[in-house]
Amino acid sequence: MSQEKVILVTNDDGITAKGISALVEVARQFGRVVVVAPDKAQSAMGHAITLNQPLRLNKVNIWEGIESYACSGTPVDCVKLAIDKIFHRKPDLCLSGINHGSNASINIIYSGTLSAAMEASLQHIPAIGFSSLDHSSDADMSAAQHYAQLVIEQLLTKGVPDFHLLNVNIPALPLADIQGIRVCRQALQAKWVEDFLERQDPMGKNYYWVTGRFLTDDHNTDTDIWALEHGFVSLVPVQHDLTAYDDMHFIRKNWEF
Amino acid sequence: MSQEKVILVTNDDGITAKGISALVEVARQFGRVVVVAPDKAQSAMGHAITLNQPLRLNKVNIWEGIESYACSGTPVDCVKLAIDKIFHRKPDLCLSGINHGSNASINIIYSGTLSAAMEASLQHIPAIGFSSLDHSSDADMSAAQHYAQLVIEQLLTKGVPDFHLLNVNIPALPLADIQGIRVCRQALQAKWVEDFLERQDPMGKNYYWVTGRFLTDDHNTDTDIWALEHGFVSLVPVQHDLTAYDDMHFIRKNWEF
Repeated sequence: MSQEKVILVTNDDGITAKGISALVEVARQFGRVVVVAPDKAQSAMGHAITLNQPLRLNKVNIWEGIESYACSGTPVDCVKLAIDKIFHRKPDLCLSGINHGSNASINIIYSGTLSAAMEASLQHIPAIGFSSLDHSSDADMSAAQHYAQLVIEQLLTKGVPDFHLLNVNIPALPLADIQGIRVCRQALQAKWVEDFLERQDPMGKNYYWVTGRFLTDDHNTDTDIWALEHGFVSLVPVQHDLTAYDDMHFIRKNWEF
Repeated sequence: MSQEKVILVTNDDGITAKGISALVEVARQFGRVVVVAPDKAQSAMGHAITLNQPLRLNKVNIWEGIESYACSGTPVDCVKLAIDKIFHRKPDLCLSGINHGSNASINIIYSGTLSAAMEASLQHIPAIGFSSLDHSSDADMSAAQHYAQLVIEQLLTKGVPDFHLLNVNIPALPLADIQGIRVCRQALQAKWVEDFLERQDPMGKNYYWVTGRFLTDDHNTDTDIWALEHGFVSLVPVQHDLTAYDDMHFIRKNWEF
């Protein structure tokens, strides 16, 4: 593997999270790493970008020998700013994470971690989002690091024709208890069921705070949820086409305008 | 059509935008409308949800006889709060928009308008996002209203088996110049090319402000971009599965873990 590869590392838990340090350690074995990550937690930011405010980029010194910037924006802002103002070119690879918490199934739609990887892939940069199912801030990332290394090696040596991005989730288990990697599809028929906490402020006005449970009815053995529930790392290749082709054909045939 | 249908109307330009008034006018012909929309512009918020702050919901009086709430959160927060705290049930239909500006092609990934509709559809509520290509705040929404009415009528009378949501974009043209509706797919090979404005603040520190141009290499006649460039309304049915199945099969066959 060439030491010349330029690798952008980002995340959505913020540049001081444990997970991004774990990912930097893995990434630096594959090339020159540059970190551009949010200066604060940006979980569940989805594919948000900042239009109505200016952005700041501050050089920080966290990892010996790694050029690093804290950005005031969202994960997607980080990727856009990195390409336009730091690299002035496209990096060879974008790695996002390691997220503290699952991004399996439809969580890819809400996840800042995966949106950063998605943004890179829209710009034709191969990208991987990594997430550990352990959402605690001091999560043990060693098993996740082991599998991140395996997946990056395979992507750089074997590749995928017309590749977009990967969504990799790692169970919250010791390395020895993980059963291996399952290449799978995103579980469907999934949603978050909200149950907002409702309280009154000191002025007697209501406020609401989101809480919720993730539910899926799709327990097939080829899904990421099944893999994770059975101790496997899930690896889901992801693309950008949201067109519902069956619905398109139905509407063309049956609707009248 | 039954007058008993309950219809949630939301948007991402904020509850005082011209586009949501245009949509409320159309929606009220189809049932009982309740509006829950952001109290300020939330464009490009993608599928962001608010985790780290409480949310506020304030009853407002904008449209005669229409129950309406301004919400301090994102478009997705509006849909979640509406279902859990206002309806205490699922509405029969969710309409989002009319957005001031295009949401064709991959803009569905960035768009707050479409993310609100996507959130409703994840909760099994039929949903439509409407966008006018006129992004000015005083855009003429009359042609968009005409086509919104046609599309809602067809959805309520003809339906679609296993329906998720629709992304409907309307050209910035007078009604008489619009060529009709094209049922199409999302244009691919598309991206925003950023060119951040770079300036110095009064303390001499740099700040960056996003600007960009939308580009696509996919000019096939079955795409939404082609339809809009040729004076048609584009109607793209949308689904939630981002799995890249070809990549999945390739990786299963060729990678070694």
